[in-house]
Amino acid sequence: MKPISDAFLVVMAGGSGTRFWPKSTSKHPKQLLSFGQGTSLLTQTLNRFEGLIPPTQKWIVTTKSLTSAIQDDSPGVQILSEPQGRNTAPCVYWAAREIAKKNPKGIMLVMPSDHTIPQLEKFKKTVSDAIAWAQSHDDLVTLGIKPDRPETGYGYLKFGVSVGSGAYRVDSFVEKPNLDKAKEFLKAGNFYWNGGMFVWRVDVILRAFDQYAPEMKKIWDANHEKVEAAYPHMTATSIDYAVMEKASNVTAFPLDCGWDDLGSWTSLENLGELLGAKKDSSVVMAGDLISIESTQNIIDAQGKLVALLGIQDLIVVHHGDVILVARKDRAQDIKLVVEQVKKLRPGLA
Amino acid sequence: MKPISDAFLVVMAGGSGTRFWPKSTSKHPKQLLSFGQGTSLLTQTLNRFEGLIPPTQKWIVTTKSLTSAIQDDSPGVQILSEPQGRNTAPCVYWAAREIAKKNPKGIMLVMPSDHTIPQLEKFKKTVSDAIAWAQSHDDLVTLGIKPDRPETGYGYLKFGVSVGSGAYRVDSFVEKPNLDKAKEFLKAGNFYWNGGMFVWRVDVILRAFDQYAPEMKKIWDANHEKVEAAYPHMTATSIDYAVMEKASNVTAFPLDCGWDDLGSWTSLENLGELLGAKKDSSVVMAGDLISIESTQNIIDAQGKLVALLGIQDLIVVHHGDVILVARKDRAQDIKLVVEQVKKLRPGLA
Repeated sequence: MKPISDAFLVVMAGGSGTRFWPKSTSKHPKQLLSFGQGTSLLTQTLNRFEGLIPPTQKWIVTTKSLTSAIQDDSPGVQILSEPQGRNTAPCVYWAAREIAKKNPKGIMLVMPSDHTIPQLEKFKKTVSDAIAWAQSHDDLVTLGIKPDRPETGYGYLKFGVSVGSGAYRVDSFVEKPNLDKAKEFLKAGNFYWNGGMFVWRVDVILRAFDQYAPEMKKIWDANHEKVEAAYPHMTATSIDYAVMEKASNVTAFPLDCGWDDLGSWTSLENLGELLGAKKDSSVVMAGDLISIESTQNIIDAQGKLVALLGIQDLIVVHHGDVILVARKDRAQDIKLVVEQVKKLRPGLA
Repeated sequence: MKPISDAFLVVMAGGSGTRFWPKSTSKHPKQLLSFGQGTSLLTQTLNRFEGLIPPTQKWIVTTKSLTSAIQDDSPGVQILSEPQGRNTAPCVYWAAREIAKKNPKGIMLVMPSDHTIPQLEKFKKTVSDAIAWAQSHDDLVTLGIKPDRPETGYGYLKFGVSVGSGAYRVDSFVEKPNLDKAKEFLKAGNFYWNGGMFVWRVDVILRAFDQYAPEMKKIWDANHEKVEAAYPHMTATSIDYAVMEKASNVTAFPLDCGWDDLGSWTSLENLGELLGAKKDSSVVMAGDLISIESTQNIIDAQGKLVALLGIQDLIVVHHGDVILVARKDRAQDIKLVVEQVKKLRPGLA
């Protein structure tokens, strides 16, 4: 496959979530973790576009505080280093302007850095279709992930009419639903998860910014395109909220490739097969496991012997100076733990 | 208090149980653990007799394989090093013969090395009473621990008639009962736990050995008192079985001093107050604990931050290269784990 010469990849790697604490911390966030797959999620993301995007046109956007760690993880990759995190709209805008300097009609792919996509060929095919569409249409293109469960943790895209080539008009962006709504969505069949993956020409997205968020251009120009000066004035807002939800030219391609956003320790269960052998149906990333009448646990304790006796549905993690033991159904509440860690042992948060 | 010049302490420290695995291992058994109290249970045992027993008359019996570790823990204390473990009867017999060489009418105290006795003064008073009795009676004296629950994990002493000075004749030694029996015992009031603590003159116990286990003297004499030669011929049997259950001159003093044999991780709950502050009613020996909606756990992870989220009734231990997570009601089954460890990572068992 020959790379598409006018395509630029922008990987958003500024997140510093704590859902995988203690493995993920503010200084070593999820995108730098490998989850037993040899390379970081960030590197996996960059590698995913091999053959599609010219190597010198793969960029990473991250915040200053993470830049050094990101550089270590992805040496040689160009980094746009934000003075501070401002959600996704400002970083997309900045990257779009930078790409426009290289190629005013360049194709810009915006991708999260911390998701997993097991079925690579399907993904590449969909992305190629999206690029082709963006090259020939003045549309904001996004990828809608085919849901396989009534998930309440994601926003949805409501697909409208088919517009050919496998693409659909997006009627609306839908906030995270409750379970009843999510079940309706799954049954209806035209609701797709919003995975935050976008493909567009830079002239198209910059025009959309000018139309729906004109203050961004003003701030940028007033500060002579100096990122250090402009950023503090930028409102922290998402690209969805600033542009996508308001735009009428949003087109989507359905994506069905085993995508997972690794939203919590429990999402590792969806990735079981990627993590190699499992014992007693537990997901295990440990030196050795001894499991007696123990099932359905998630274990991450590299280099350790982990022994379980009569244990079900737990998350057990050892990392550095920390041992976490949490009920799986409380995985979303690990943030409560991290809040306490910040007070008690800030260096470990 | 002036030490009793004719009294000798024999601390039995040959055990290599694994109930506190991974903290206790075959090379570092329970008697060498401190359980957050600064010194090992063995040292605590030796110290318990300060003022009662002359320092040079405190002896330790252990096996060859543990001798070096015991020496490190109790430097300067005389050690009788058994070529191999043979249960308690042979080591009591050997120690009695050694004491008889120093003082044929010496008082011998036989004490386990891995129990805990919070109420020291009460203990010393009872031991003093027992010593006084043994000095003036040709009896085998033992201490019966006042039960506070219908425990099925211990053998019992059935107390008979009072013989004065707070002592009772022991009618019989009773095997570990089932729960119904244990409840009856508790109600009856004259059943006491057999804690394996004995006080007698060496001439009295040696005479009892000659009467009830005459082969011991034969083996010992035939091998010219050479322990390396004699030991392989000794039958591994307990002092209870070899002598106490058969003897008719057994006298007991009731002991009520918060005694605990630390039979498993869960027994640490009985020691809560010795271990300092507790959080959420968990027993904690860890660097720091963050506990969110978690109660009644037993945590031992020195130097670590342990974070619990929605966790009840678990044992969580980190030690060296091992992490153990076990349900508290499975504490007695840790031996099943250790059996697997012996196969998988013998160095950790």
